[in-house]
Amino acid sequence: MLRSDTLHRSLSDPAVTSMGFLTEVAGRYPEAISFALGRPSDVSFEVPALHRYLSRFVSHLIDDLHYGEAGVRDVLFQYGSPKGFIQHLIARNLHVDEGIEVAPESIVVTVGCQEALFLVLRTLSRDRRDAVLAISPTYMGLTGAARLLDMPVLSVDGGVDGVDVAALRERVRSARSEGLRPRALYIIPDFANPAGVTMPTALRHELLEVADAENILLLEDNPYGLFRTTGRRPPTLKALDPEHQVVYLGSMAKTVFPAARVGYIVADQPVFHDRGGNSLLADELAKLKGALTVNTSSMGQAIVAGKLLENDGSLLRSNTAEISLYRRNLERLLKGLDHHFGDVPGVGWKAPDGGFFVVVSMPFPADDTLLEKSAREFGVLWTPMSYFYDGEGGQAQLRLSCSDLTLDDIDEGLRRLAALTTARSQT
Amino acid sequence: MLRSDTLHRSLSDPAVTSMGFLTEVAGRYPEAISFALGRPSDVSFEVPALHRYLSRFVSHLIDDLHYGEAGVRDVLFQYGSPKGFIQHLIARNLHVDEGIEVAPESIVVTVGCQEALFLVLRTLSRDRRDAVLAISPTYMGLTGAARLLDMPVLSVDGGVDGVDVAALRERVRSARSEGLRPRALYIIPDFANPAGVTMPTALRHELLEVADAENILLLEDNPYGLFRTTGRRPPTLKALDPEHQVVYLGSMAKTVFPAARVGYIVADQPVFHDRGGNSLLADELAKLKGALTVNTSSMGQAIVAGKLLENDGSLLRSNTAEISLYRRNLERLLKGLDHHFGDVPGVGWKAPDGGFFVVVSMPFPADDTLLEKSAREFGVLWTPMSYFYDGEGGQAQLRLSCSDLTLDDIDEGLRRLAALTTARSQT
Repeated sequence: MLRSDTLHRSLSDPAVTSMGFLTEVAGRYPEAISFALGRPSDVSFEVPALHRYLSRFVSHLIDDLHYGEAGVRDVLFQYGSPKGFIQHLIARNLHVDEGIEVAPESIVVTVGCQEALFLVLRTLSRDRRDAVLAISPTYMGLTGAARLLDMPVLSVDGGVDGVDVAALRERVRSARSEGLRPRALYIIPDFANPAGVTMPTALRHELLEVADAENILLLEDNPYGLFRTTGRRPPTLKALDPEHQVVYLGSMAKTVFPAARVGYIVADQPVFHDRGGNSLLADELAKLKGALTVNTSSMGQAIVAGKLLENDGSLLRSNTAEISLYRRNLERLLKGLDHHFGDVPGVGWKAPDGGFFVVVSMPFPADDTLLEKSAREFGVLWTPMSYFYDGEGGQAQLRLSCSDLTLDDIDEGLRRLAALTTARSQT
Repeated sequence: MLRSDTLHRSLSDPAVTSMGFLTEVAGRYPEAISFALGRPSDVSFEVPALHRYLSRFVSHLIDDLHYGEAGVRDVLFQYGSPKGFIQHLIARNLHVDEGIEVAPESIVVTVGCQEALFLVLRTLSRDRRDAVLAISPTYMGLTGAARLLDMPVLSVDGGVDGVDVAALRERVRSARSEGLRPRALYIIPDFANPAGVTMPTALRHELLEVADAENILLLEDNPYGLFRTTGRRPPTLKALDPEHQVVYLGSMAKTVFPAARVGYIVADQPVFHDRGGNSLLADELAKLKGALTVNTSSMGQAIVAGKLLENDGSLLRSNTAEISLYRRNLERLLKGLDHHFGDVPGVGWKAPDGGFFVVVSMPFPADDTLLEKSAREFGVLWTPMSYFYDGEGGQAQLRLSCSDLTLDDIDEGLRRLAALTTARSQT
């Protein structure tokens, strides 16, 4: 009765379907070691903690905010504000961990960072001329959200340090000459997914200046910032943002847990209304959230709140075990790459200072066909970098993640990847 | 920096902004009695139940489904399938309470019914020619989701019994002659929001035939079906649907609780792919959910699952107290309307057989100006019916809800409404 060619085009777009192929291959070869999953370690995942966090949040409502029983029931069970009810705790977290000072009123709690991306893009796209710029290679979640809206994504070269500012200016200009309106640049300045690159502080200042001069917003996504293995963290763009050029996209997927589905948007930009008056961009985003998902699950919010409360607002503190584990794993992965591929011609990578991802260049195409062969014959999974390019790019690269693997799995996985590489190079 | 006329048009659309005005007025007059809220009674809302439901679901995973500790952690904490993990319990609930037989594979769990609406509309709208039909007056959630997509909403007269089938056929034809493609009709067959009307069984059969003949899907939304005060429930459209013409939209907002944000879609329609092969519409919807919110909160899903498990899959059984309370309140409201307005010229209403809503016609415009006066001078809130019309309609009608009021509040609220009516009629 229904034909696929009558349904929305995003359903057949690689940005939406690629990960499905990977999941399907992983399902067929459950014994394969997976460097493909960007999921967090489950070292702190315990069911009793869920009960404890919920109780801690209820105590906060009663003891700190002086809610009565009816008030607690309203918060946990009834419809509430689309903006959420834990914005004060998120604002405190941003102060404690990031040195970002924002009012709770500029925060909208979302169903993970993915809903945040969708809401920001929807708000900024009035018609087909509005486009979003994105550092290439790009996190697929951004491209997927744009596809849902038929919104053009304009690739900007990430260069060596995370963004090529000259290329950005040129892309903005060329887009305008084509009749497009580039509204914002999507960027992950810390340990980017997938490239692993972190932007130096000076470049952050430069990027803010360019955004101001070109009148584009910066959509700063920061899921991995806490997971630094070496050196000092540069400030986030949002911490350097007196002109309100940055919309900050928060994810709790890696710092609390993915299935809570709690993210947020910091949008302290003033909006001038043509009929008079001002509002905050956060309030405009909240209107659309009301028409998209109404509220973020109270249970998810309460659990995240409980974890924040237990740790005096610091997710850096509550992730001590995870930070050590990711450091250990990344060091092991980099050492293993050196061992197996240090002398292999055509194989190369850049060691990141943290995060989940290492990009490896190969002397042959790393596509879906090779991925299937890798899983079937060698028992190892990875992500083709071509998934992260809109159009051509990344054909001979793959992304490795080691965030949820044991040291033995990292060692054995790299042996298998080396065997695949040897076999592939000989054909 | 940002101007409202550069942002998406839905931000200034009444379908998205009307409820904001109502909320704002309610906030200014917190002492007003509100007939405006369509929210459920909190008679069963208890914090300990949340802990119990979560534990019950964990036991189900371990004892019934034989998950180990790692499996439980994966379900509750990690990323999972966009379709969710409680589809088997929802399928059982539909069997037990509705006589609907569907495979768990045709179910997608969503962030409340609102995300379900958005996903279905997005999937069905390939370009600006794809339109959705909706019984007028229409639930604002449908119009809001369509506005997010710039998708035309075509109003169809609800007539006396819930749908005017001749008007539907005519609207489909006229739309096609205008170059539009009407894809589906959105309808609430039981105790419609806002009209309160329930479709007779014969008309349900007739509607299914028309949908088949005209090749349109029926989007059946059923948030209030369990809350019947008198007589027997007619079968849902989905229970009468051998041709897979019905996409069934489920809400747990009124039967479990709103803030869980758990709804679902039953989409057992086959999709024929132009490159060969078939899929289920549910799988296509899940792809887009992956790009919109990734997963539905595990905590929300677990709580809903626990309540279903505790009640052998029956929400009818678990809502015994609520069903009595809604019956008692609706009877009191109807009796009070008779008492205060039975002899007032120009005031009229139709008694529904259940649900949350009664529509009252007034001999004067019931608009935002009167609502504000009603709150300020008379201490009573209601919803202007014009909110539910796309364009003209409902100007002299208001919607009353009594689902979350005490009997005293119903009595006093009606006294206040009568005083407003007297004052307004004298001006």
